[in-house]
Amino acid sequence: MAPRRPVFSVCWFLLLLLSSVCGGRRLRGESTALTLESVRKFLTREEDSIVFSLIERAKYPRNAPAYDPSYLGSPAKFHGLSLVELFVRETEAVQAKAGRYENPVEIPFFPRHMTLTLAPPYDFPNELHAAAAAVNVSGTIWREYLDGWLPQITSQGDDGNYAPTAAADLVCLQALSRRIHYGRYVAEAKYRDAPQDYNTAIRAQDRDALMKLLTFEGQEDAVKRRVEEKAKVFGQDVTLGKRADDGGNATDYKVDPVVVYRLYGDWVIPMTKMVQVEYLLRRLD
Amino acid sequence: MAPRRPVFSVCWFLLLLLSSVCGGRRLRGESTALTLESVRKFLTREEDSIVFSLIERAKYPRNAPAYDPSYLGSPAKFHGLSLVELFVRETEAVQAKAGRYENPVEIPFFPRHMTLTLAPPYDFPNELHAAAAAVNVSGTIWREYLDGWLPQITSQGDDGNYAPTAAADLVCLQALSRRIHYGRYVAEAKYRDAPQDYNTAIRAQDRDALMKLLTFEGQEDAVKRRVEEKAKVFGQDVTLGKRADDGGNATDYKVDPVVVYRLYGDWVIPMTKMVQVEYLLRRLD
Repeated sequence: MAPRRPVFSVCWFLLLLLSSVCGGRRLRGESTALTLESVRKFLTREEDSIVFSLIERAKYPRNAPAYDPSYLGSPAKFHGLSLVELFVRETEAVQAKAGRYENPVEIPFFPRHMTLTLAPPYDFPNELHAAAAAVNVSGTIWREYLDGWLPQITSQGDDGNYAPTAAADLVCLQALSRRIHYGRYVAEAKYRDAPQDYNTAIRAQDRDALMKLLTFEGQEDAVKRRVEEKAKVFGQDVTLGKRADDGGNATDYKVDPVVVYRLYGDWVIPMTKMVQVEYLLRRLD
Repeated sequence: MAPRRPVFSVCWFLLLLLSSVCGGRRLRGESTALTLESVRKFLTREEDSIVFSLIERAKYPRNAPAYDPSYLGSPAKFHGLSLVELFVRETEAVQAKAGRYENPVEIPFFPRHMTLTLAPPYDFPNELHAAAAAVNVSGTIWREYLDGWLPQITSQGDDGNYAPTAAADLVCLQALSRRIHYGRYVAEAKYRDAPQDYNTAIRAQDRDALMKLLTFEGQEDAVKRRVEEKAKVFGQDVTLGKRADDGGNATDYKVDPVVVYRLYGDWVIPMTKMVQVEYLLRRLD
């Protein structure tokens, strides 16, 4: 019923070229309302997105063939890539066309030379210091999510749903990447709030001193306990007339809340701080 | 850091053709363990996915330009399609390559002539009666989600994040479509459980009688109240030491629980029953 007006890829590609020739460059907005409070709100809301995405990935079993390059055939056939990597590359290309990466909050895992967008320019706010904005740990996020964390949030098994599995992985990866790379905004907000606190360490290019300035163990502990709580609240089986209480076992939840606690404590928070340090090191360039 | 091995679309396309020529047809599995209980479990889990997807879409404002065909330029330029429709068509094409629609549980909004898959065949169970499996209400779901429900779950506004908005819409649409089209499985399970209850109405092609046989108001009421509760539980702001209680206002939640109640009561449940009726009408063909 739906497909009334066919669109062909070649057609789209030609129009894309035309659009890039005729269209103007995006005008970057001036800095707006980046504050410690706006940063805190963003990070808190992203926790929900991350927990939802993990729960939705855990709906499918491990589905190992989707990550095994040999599954698609001989190594030469698809450059030795896995189904998930091919899927993410192609999906990111579609999202780039629709303008996703024009917003500097979003960073692709596989940036392409062709980053043209079909959409007219949108005036996204430009909050970051230009010389520091390019901090990028996408490669590490990709590797550590797939090799380290994915096995902990999924059960053994193979149900053949590799495309929904890859789509769910991409949502997890995008949410984690957005959160970790938001360290650039966190650092910028902190720097604007009290530049004098950071200037000496930045001039000395002193990583350890910066890390110390950015570390608040009490706050980090509260975040870890809150995401564990979110994994319990969002991952419970909701039934009428009762809600899960804190006494539940890991098996009562769709993703183990202790794994989510460690995901943040051992990885997301340290990675975000690393991004903050790298950003600040370039903040006076 | 990530892009070490470039893949080009043309290359992929040629390999896709090669794969389709060399690869065998998927062997369909025999019927397995479809029961009233397995159907109930599937539908209950899908409620969580639907509520998560609505909450994630509501993170972005309405973003009206993404739905306005004139936003991308003159009507001739992109066949008069909106950014969201172009985005969904292209994303579904990538998901088709990765084998999504080989599983009969999944139905695309824009089926293409090119539905080749890169992945080797997977033996998905074949639970449906062949003559009835093609029941399809994708066009209605697309239209009523975008025109009717989307304005009720989003706030006015435009933040320029059209690609993440379109991606969030696709997740909503896929979850709703999977749930509504699962009516085929619901009908099959009910028919297998007690064929004698349905045969007379099917032979008489009596829609009203079938609808009556499929209607259990008490059960439907419980489902509506449960999804409303899920919207409260999953859409609350989780803070340490307290959880939202039932006395909250609509504004305390990321999506209004009353809208989710009506989404199910006025639309998802009636649509699923319509799919069940259409399936049963062909069950003896």
